[in-house]
Amino acid sequence: MRINDEYGKLPGSYLFAETARRTKAYEAAHPDQDVIRLGIGDVTQPLVPAVISAMHAAVDEMGVRETFRGYGPDFGYDFLVNAIREHDYMPLGIDLAYDEVFVSDGAKSDVGNIQELFAPGAVIAVTDPVYPVYVDSNAMSGRAGSYVKDRWDRLVYLPCNAENQFVPPVPDRPVDVVYLCYPNNPTGTVLTKAQLKVFVDWAREHEAIIIYDAAYKAFITEKDIPHSIYEVEGAKEVAIECCSYSKTAGFTGTRCAYTVVPHSVKGLNSAGEKVELNAMWKRRMSTKFNGVSYPVQRAAAAIYTPEGKAQVQAVIDGYLKNAQVIREGLTKLGMEVYGGVNSPYVWLKVPSGMDSWSFFDLLLDRCHVVGTPGAGFGPSGEGYFRLTAFNTLEKTEEAVSRLKLLF
Amino acid sequence: MRINDEYGKLPGSYLFAETARRTKAYEAAHPDQDVIRLGIGDVTQPLVPAVISAMHAAVDEMGVRETFRGYGPDFGYDFLVNAIREHDYMPLGIDLAYDEVFVSDGAKSDVGNIQELFAPGAVIAVTDPVYPVYVDSNAMSGRAGSYVKDRWDRLVYLPCNAENQFVPPVPDRPVDVVYLCYPNNPTGTVLTKAQLKVFVDWAREHEAIIIYDAAYKAFITEKDIPHSIYEVEGAKEVAIECCSYSKTAGFTGTRCAYTVVPHSVKGLNSAGEKVELNAMWKRRMSTKFNGVSYPVQRAAAAIYTPEGKAQVQAVIDGYLKNAQVIREGLTKLGMEVYGGVNSPYVWLKVPSGMDSWSFFDLLLDRCHVVGTPGAGFGPSGEGYFRLTAFNTLEKTEEAVSRLKLLF
Repeated sequence: MRINDEYGKLPGSYLFAETARRTKAYEAAHPDQDVIRLGIGDVTQPLVPAVISAMHAAVDEMGVRETFRGYGPDFGYDFLVNAIREHDYMPLGIDLAYDEVFVSDGAKSDVGNIQELFAPGAVIAVTDPVYPVYVDSNAMSGRAGSYVKDRWDRLVYLPCNAENQFVPPVPDRPVDVVYLCYPNNPTGTVLTKAQLKVFVDWAREHEAIIIYDAAYKAFITEKDIPHSIYEVEGAKEVAIECCSYSKTAGFTGTRCAYTVVPHSVKGLNSAGEKVELNAMWKRRMSTKFNGVSYPVQRAAAAIYTPEGKAQVQAVIDGYLKNAQVIREGLTKLGMEVYGGVNSPYVWLKVPSGMDSWSFFDLLLDRCHVVGTPGAGFGPSGEGYFRLTAFNTLEKTEEAVSRLKLLF
Repeated sequence: MRINDEYGKLPGSYLFAETARRTKAYEAAHPDQDVIRLGIGDVTQPLVPAVISAMHAAVDEMGVRETFRGYGPDFGYDFLVNAIREHDYMPLGIDLAYDEVFVSDGAKSDVGNIQELFAPGAVIAVTDPVYPVYVDSNAMSGRAGSYVKDRWDRLVYLPCNAENQFVPPVPDRPVDVVYLCYPNNPTGTVLTKAQLKVFVDWAREHEAIIIYDAAYKAFITEKDIPHSIYEVEGAKEVAIECCSYSKTAGFTGTRCAYTVVPHSVKGLNSAGEKVELNAMWKRRMSTKFNGVSYPVQRAAAAIYTPEGKAQVQAVIDGYLKNAQVIREGLTKLGMEVYGGVNSPYVWLKVPSGMDSWSFFDLLLDRCHVVGTPGAGFGPSGEGYFRLTAFNTLEKTEEAVSRLKLLF
């Protein structure tokens, strides 16, 4: 049996598996230390009451023959799809057709699977640093080429760093697909509508498409920062948008997300004909996926009720307060920090003379705080470090005060 | 943006989308007819009380900070993985390592995604007729070649029909992977341990692997029919096994399944080195999947409790009773029927002179009963038809009595 050789080219293990391994080893060696986790982007606050009630009600329905639900619609129940259209898009002036919204079990699944629609030889651009799933999922299909030193030789990297204020340049060579994530994971930075428009215009001009990951849109606080790429004129012709309830409503362990694939987004087959990606995604999802758990879809729909909205916003505000504590605390220590205003992530420059994995080890050893080394997100992440706001205010304040030990 | 050309080769729409479309059109034209659905393999009985209680308890945990769960372990919670090992495998004398079991959102996802581990040029064999996902997922990756008339020109078909008592022959040429599903979907037939051993021995001799879909194992009633391929000596070296709670416990709308990938199953990379598929599947799942909803995993674990087991068995017994009603009823009408003893599916020969889609239309029009045309499952399915036991006893009896109209 012949295997897919591309897996053998993947370097080391998945970033968060490695940070978890080092953390576990540290804790085993120092069982008395109170380690504070500001590493992986996992929420810590419970599901809000409106979500819990809706889920209980749905579970009860599943226990009674008359209201029991077997296989649901392949792409999500009406009640959820329509809530998404009405509450997430109509207020922004964006009108989506019913069959342009696809409910799934997670944005990680969607951004990992979407590359199945691309030609094997398609050229992929990613911002750098980047959420590793975009890169690894393309590498597994051979589109990234070979991993040489610290980068893939067929990927186009768009560096984002303090020098360009974390605004990526458009690709300088022909590219089929660009992945953008805003508010950005890992840097916590954003693009204004005008900055995003540069990419949309570039994609339209070059017949490329954009995979837009908006998983963190609920954290946007500033005006003029788009909540959807479709706020930019022309984006519906070139962009697929992936959204998630994981960070919006604490669904990391509950699992629900959605992806928007407008009918007007088209690719070229090798005969030079234009093909709707919407039709391809429908085929992909109906062939290899069987829908999201009914109680989970009811849970997701509950966040669009007036109580749900208010309760979820209160949780987001709490995380944003933590981000502020980190940002201001580290700034006072003289550190250079970015993000954390429209995002639960704070991106900091590691002290000079260190690399980001050494800083990870130092922070764990001296402060017992877990973060994520920037190098894990790509070559331009080297020299930076990510801290998350997903902890309690108390633990966040404690972590920040421990960082003083480093200075 | 260049697309994956393989999608353009897929014929028509997914089988069940087409039967649903015809049924919907019929119902719209005949709003007064009481249509009985014995088509798609979807359960109709509600989740059992033990499952409902466990799910409610888990939902409550998600609403409280101290017991809230964010991202779970990538491959499933301990409580579920260990229940699977203890209750599904140990009683059969099969000892699985903890990390050989992977919990997922559905067997459709797993059997659709597993082909990502195969070389692009791997040769695939399927029994014919066959569950369409094995074929379509490989076609989307280019391994099926082109669809010519009624078949893919790079697939190896292993015909199963009345002539060979639905026992597939082993491939007569070099093949990398064989998909087997027993109890079989769509035919409802089974292989004895000795018949399955022929495939295991063949795979070991030819260094091929077997993807074994055991989604219907809960319906096995006869002795000497294996509940797991690992009951066959040597299977752990060559077989990956996919199981599901969909049919076992009515989870079609709840979504949970698992796949077993033993460490001893290996493939060859292009350098001729042996590689563990277990390590590859770990990488695939941790990169493109983020685990199953916590309350759903608790729900699945509840079927292994004494009450859960008894309640689930009662539901299965009910479906098996329906299968018996169909099997015996149609036999009395002089029809040739197969399956339905160790399976919720009854496979029948359509009256001579008809094809299976014409029989679908006739049955819908004359009897208002929905089934699934055998041709939808592959070329050897032509001339056959599938009826399912997933309805109430009353409706099943009514459907069988309506079939008398045809004679």
